[in-house]
Amino acid sequence: MDRSNNGEGKYLQSGTPRLRVAQIAPLYERIPPKLYGGTERVVSYVTEELVRRGHQVTLFASGDSQTGAKLVPGCPQSLRLAGKPELGAFLQLPMLSDVYEEAGRFDVIHSHIDYWSFPFARLTNVPSVATMHGRLDVEDLHPVYARYRSMPLVSISDAQREPLPLMNWVKTVYHGLPRDLLRFSPNPGKYLAFLGRISPEKRPDLAIKVARQLGIPFKIAAKVDVVDRQYFETVIKPLLSPPDVEYIGEIGEAEKSEFLGNALAFMFTVDWPEPFGLAMIEALACGTPVIARPCGSIPEVIRSGVTGFIAGSVDEMAAAVRNIGKISRQECRREFETRFTAEIMVDNYEQVYRELIEKGLTKSLGKPKETYRRTVAARSATEPGM
Amino acid sequence: MDRSNNGEGKYLQSGTPRLRVAQIAPLYERIPPKLYGGTERVVSYVTEELVRRGHQVTLFASGDSQTGAKLVPGCPQSLRLAGKPELGAFLQLPMLSDVYEEAGRFDVIHSHIDYWSFPFARLTNVPSVATMHGRLDVEDLHPVYARYRSMPLVSISDAQREPLPLMNWVKTVYHGLPRDLLRFSPNPGKYLAFLGRISPEKRPDLAIKVARQLGIPFKIAAKVDVVDRQYFETVIKPLLSPPDVEYIGEIGEAEKSEFLGNALAFMFTVDWPEPFGLAMIEALACGTPVIARPCGSIPEVIRSGVTGFIAGSVDEMAAAVRNIGKISRQECRREFETRFTAEIMVDNYEQVYRELIEKGLTKSLGKPKETYRRTVAARSATEPGM
Repeated sequence: MDRSNNGEGKYLQSGTPRLRVAQIAPLYERIPPKLYGGTERVVSYVTEELVRRGHQVTLFASGDSQTGAKLVPGCPQSLRLAGKPELGAFLQLPMLSDVYEEAGRFDVIHSHIDYWSFPFARLTNVPSVATMHGRLDVEDLHPVYARYRSMPLVSISDAQREPLPLMNWVKTVYHGLPRDLLRFSPNPGKYLAFLGRISPEKRPDLAIKVARQLGIPFKIAAKVDVVDRQYFETVIKPLLSPPDVEYIGEIGEAEKSEFLGNALAFMFTVDWPEPFGLAMIEALACGTPVIARPCGSIPEVIRSGVTGFIAGSVDEMAAAVRNIGKISRQECRREFETRFTAEIMVDNYEQVYRELIEKGLTKSLGKPKETYRRTVAARSATEPGM
Repeated sequence: MDRSNNGEGKYLQSGTPRLRVAQIAPLYERIPPKLYGGTERVVSYVTEELVRRGHQVTLFASGDSQTGAKLVPGCPQSLRLAGKPELGAFLQLPMLSDVYEEAGRFDVIHSHIDYWSFPFARLTNVPSVATMHGRLDVEDLHPVYARYRSMPLVSISDAQREPLPLMNWVKTVYHGLPRDLLRFSPNPGKYLAFLGRISPEKRPDLAIKVARQLGIPFKIAAKVDVVDRQYFETVIKPLLSPPDVEYIGEIGEAEKSEFLGNALAFMFTVDWPEPFGLAMIEALACGTPVIARPCGSIPEVIRSGVTGFIAGSVDEMAAAVRNIGKISRQECRREFETRFTAEIMVDNYEQVYRELIEKGLTKSLGKPKETYRRTVAARSATEPGM
């Protein structure tokens, strides 16, 4: 009986059809990444949750990735660790060939590598969807996006779409974390926390000012990229004064529950059009309220007065910290569980996949159809075996 | 009657079938380039000669290109002039979509943008060929080439193939210039000439040493790229002493006949695996013998003792200049006319095109065939009209 055969049957235990899904990941970091890497972590969560549900998933990613899906390596080692991030664009081409030359093996192809899958998607009949993980306000790239206006896209917040309203946005799917990844801490801690990456657009300096104004300890757990090294040395380092204002380096997944859960509030002081902001939902998963500036996705992720506060200036943020006792840590955790788990995220992606498969290919096949018919005719004429 | 209809018929005046050819050019320079740009000039010569013969040619290139073919712009302005050379990789994607989504409109697709066409070629049934214009010894890229081993490739010298012997090399086609582009100068001039680009691997310093040793004037007509500016300032500029050793800047096509034709010999002192060396055949077209170092393509292009001398060291090159009277300028021009005209180059490319079309798609369709059959089945099932 099909349903008893978890690995091979056509239906899941739930009775819905098992999907053959390709996931295309960036090659810069392994899946999941060892340390920092938001996109790569989300790809991992999507992939593993689909596998858990019984779908037949193939992950195209760097060869050092770890997954329950079938792994097809795009390169032996993730490029950042191999010291060759600049090869990403080139090495993506063989990976995309691996996916699209075998497109018929999949019911749906899900890309996480920005526009790179678009031209390939248009040359096959298998539905493709791409989640856009980055900011979209880089004007030099707009001619590229405009060319592929019909490509089905998923945004990670509604705000992310703003620079490119005319694309074929099929859904916003917020990022999600495995429900039990991070531990809920019911009691508020005694410091303000900053997590992620130190760079000018993340404005850690603002968060430091807030902490100093209030006399509350501040802890920074973040990586410093090579391009941000100078910013760290000249702007942030002079502001450090441990243990009051402390930089503790880059931390791994295992340390996040403690670092975030023990905080009084999580400071998300970005000054750019944040596409989503994974660290915010990590804080919520730990029950820690978020104080964030009104940029990009933030009003969609944080409910001001319920799961934290949205505040723009240093004074407003300081006032928010003073009011943090009004925020229920249980409510923060509940918000995470009802909006930002991997299960909810994958429910949404499954819906996107099924709609694309059902809808067939009406949109993506505008022009290729012509070519396709010609080649059918050409091949029929030359290949007696067909 | 078909043959009377030059623009639309199925046959050329010669009686051979008119081909529908796509030419894919780099977007960095316009076609032809205003000043320096070997690849872009060759693409122009191929394109215009095919048009002259009556083929139906579509040129995919920057919008400021000038051609008798149908021009499909990949971007409005060539990227070097627009100050955005770094966008080349991204902007190539829409151009490749323009080509391959309409592949059925062409009998053959000829790419000049290195490996970028390979993944697309494998997703269509129209034969593609790529001329490799650059050096192929960049090891980081070898995994990319290896993935597309079956892609039909043209080398611009036999020597160019050396780092990648396992590719599907279908022919070496030497570059050619329009027969009347440059003027033959029957009488030897009084200076040594250097043309092209000033950079460490071109070793203009060696040529200067030869000229100094012999007391013969030396003239450099070359561009200096931003990356080579420091080399020029620190190594070459101190060696200049006009009018003996003179840098006259970058020159255009119109000035080449005079600059090269009036020289005693052309110095091609490269110290890298030169894939072809267009400047050498420009010198021969003017009747000027070439003194070149034994690198890459040079033993294939220059016949030592007949059209110049192949010499490695400064002393050997100086001896070669002393013997330059033994070289016949008529013979140099004859060599150009019998081996390096655009007509000969396009005879060769036409042969490549026809062989690929006749051979059909046996090689390039190894894996895609599977996908293709699946999609045929899928479409037949869903599209009653087919």
